[in-house]
Amino acid sequence: MIKNLDAILSTNVKRMKRSAIRELLKLVNNPDIISFAGGLPAPESFPIEELRDIAVEVLEKDGTQVLQYGATEGDPLLREQLVKMYVEDGHDVTIDNLIITTASQQALDLIAKVFISPGDKVIVGLPSYLGGLSAFNSYGADMVGIPLDEKGMRADLLEQKLAELKKLNDLPKFIYIIPDFQNPAGITMPECRRKEILAIAHEYDILIIEDSPYRELRFEGEHQRTMYQLDGTEQVILLGTFSKIFAPGFRIGWVLGHPDVLDKIVVAKQATDLCTPPFTQRIAARYLEKGLLKENVKKIIKMYSAKKEIMMDALEANMPEGVTWTKSEGGLFTMMTLPEYIDTNELIKTAIKEENVAFVAGSSFFCDGSGTNTLRLNFSYATEEKNLEGVRRLANVIKKEINKHK
Amino acid sequence: MIKNLDAILSTNVKRMKRSAIRELLKLVNNPDIISFAGGLPAPESFPIEELRDIAVEVLEKDGTQVLQYGATEGDPLLREQLVKMYVEDGHDVTIDNLIITTASQQALDLIAKVFISPGDKVIVGLPSYLGGLSAFNSYGADMVGIPLDEKGMRADLLEQKLAELKKLNDLPKFIYIIPDFQNPAGITMPECRRKEILAIAHEYDILIIEDSPYRELRFEGEHQRTMYQLDGTEQVILLGTFSKIFAPGFRIGWVLGHPDVLDKIVVAKQATDLCTPPFTQRIAARYLEKGLLKENVKKIIKMYSAKKEIMMDALEANMPEGVTWTKSEGGLFTMMTLPEYIDTNELIKTAIKEENVAFVAGSSFFCDGSGTNTLRLNFSYATEEKNLEGVRRLANVIKKEINKHK
Repeated sequence: MIKNLDAILSTNVKRMKRSAIRELLKLVNNPDIISFAGGLPAPESFPIEELRDIAVEVLEKDGTQVLQYGATEGDPLLREQLVKMYVEDGHDVTIDNLIITTASQQALDLIAKVFISPGDKVIVGLPSYLGGLSAFNSYGADMVGIPLDEKGMRADLLEQKLAELKKLNDLPKFIYIIPDFQNPAGITMPECRRKEILAIAHEYDILIIEDSPYRELRFEGEHQRTMYQLDGTEQVILLGTFSKIFAPGFRIGWVLGHPDVLDKIVVAKQATDLCTPPFTQRIAARYLEKGLLKENVKKIIKMYSAKKEIMMDALEANMPEGVTWTKSEGGLFTMMTLPEYIDTNELIKTAIKEENVAFVAGSSFFCDGSGTNTLRLNFSYATEEKNLEGVRRLANVIKKEINKHK
Repeated sequence: MIKNLDAILSTNVKRMKRSAIRELLKLVNNPDIISFAGGLPAPESFPIEELRDIAVEVLEKDGTQVLQYGATEGDPLLREQLVKMYVEDGHDVTIDNLIITTASQQALDLIAKVFISPGDKVIVGLPSYLGGLSAFNSYGADMVGIPLDEKGMRADLLEQKLAELKKLNDLPKFIYIIPDFQNPAGITMPECRRKEILAIAHEYDILIIEDSPYRELRFEGEHQRTMYQLDGTEQVILLGTFSKIFAPGFRIGWVLGHPDVLDKIVVAKQATDLCTPPFTQRIAARYLEKGLLKENVKKIIKMYSAKKEIMMDALEANMPEGVTWTKSEGGLFTMMTLPEYIDTNELIKTAIKEENVAFVAGSSFFCDGSGTNTLRLNFSYATEEKNLEGVRRLANVIKKEINKHK
């Protein structure tokens, strides 16, 4: 082995850290721990029997095709099915507006690769999805955080920041937004805010990355049009995925966008993994073709909505004064805010050690390292019983911590 | 849409070009064209029935596990099976030496991301695998080509170049080598040359990337020990894949290496695609566990060996004087050298237009743009009849070109 590995690492990798979430996912393997940490779908939500039948059908009918290399843009059948889905939902798109990626995380990586040179600014929410922050960081992005209010990213602060950056001739490459059931905050942007932000993006001529993994999972309230749809000029790049509504183990996502942008992403993808597995793509295509996705989404909504209610009731019943949390209309997460003197990076250690309960410390989601008194809870993965018991354990940890400061 | 997309592209993407091979793969869809272009396995080599049965078994037994997110390092069962395979082949490795990637192309991308900062030198063969060159280029590598002789990369020229770079304090990050049935040249490095190059790598303290997608496919001659094995100090990073011996549509590869190197690759992979699809990984693990891979490799060797013989005989019978080609002991490719006045970047256009036959122009494989009178032929994909007919067509194109210059 060479003598000094660290000396030859790239500047890219020197910036990267192990993902706190991925490391925490390992805890899920300890059966004594109730983990609210991962953004994992419920195992009981997977349509195993249907997939078994379709896998057999795909291998028998399209075997030589799906075991071979496929197009970098993705399986044409799957692209067609997804386009059909978006058209039915009122989007003006064709197959030229859609490519497949190895789940959304690859889309984030490729977008970062296509747009970010070291030091380039990008706008993210305060807080925002950790996987997005990691991907942007790995190409040397200088992330500028804009705080959220109860309607999502604050348009006034965004405009103010862009005006400032424009003067410095340092406008961001894009604005990264998760408008529906935001991860980690569980906040959904109403149409008025979406339009405000689109107007600002047009004023400053900046792309918007609309990350939309949870949109289909709405339990209550009104379905919102996507920013892609509201914009209508393809200035928005929308990222979708099957990971939360079907099977994360298939690793299939997609990008909806202007063909010129997709062309650049495809060139980058060629050098990255040539193509997403054609086998799982074709299974997904047949699954959509048979109309099974819609049924599955209905089933999941019912399941997660019940789990969320139980968690909300349990939080209400168990949490001490001074603790608040967001009430999401869908998705997988709620975000809690504790008294300012509590650092959840420390609390997580106690929680695991003393009460066998896990969560993600909020500061991982804040590109500026703030949010140290926040944490994210996932309500989709654990059973209803464990959601209840886990909240009780968490309340114990928090109460003990508050008592220490009294 | 924003007004000037090109202005906001990263320096990374500005360097990238669409892969000539990926673009040419599209030709395969025209049934009139005989394509020797892609590095595609024969469709008749895929073990469809066995995979169908295993897919059913995996979904029934491990459904909730394989449809969920998996570990970034890969499915532990698959890693164990692969380690077993290498141990049986005389390698001193444990599970800590092996991680799974989304096929070898991702391994090349991640290695580039981990080691290459813009301007960093890397050593590649003249010629070398296009996908490797693309991956390194996409992170701004300054590629230094070392010519091959009939034993592979020339050790004398490598040493000379390293001595020169050392003086400039600009040693390369790694040496990229395909020792077995090299792509595109079809050359295999004998043990003496492997040892020479290892000695040089140790002298200069440089990592070796041993790309080994074809090694199992030996038709004749003696099985060579890997450079990883010969080295024994984990200074070599070996890349393996199922793409040529099982199913490229599964997109599964692996990296064998020092745990400290793997750790960096895993951190980079977390931000890139979180994990390779656990579903296809588990199918592959069961396939190995049942001992089916060995049988499949035997079947493929027989198939490709016959195809290669037919192509070699056809080349012998049809090619005009002044044309030579390599005689590979395995793998998928032969490389032809035409008279120097022929530019195969032009010839390919005539070949497709006038004779419905395709190949890859050789200069794509030369990082310095040389090799314009060479081309690569694949013999694994087309049927025996098409291999024969395709060589006849190619000979016609070349003869016409030579006659023009008489």
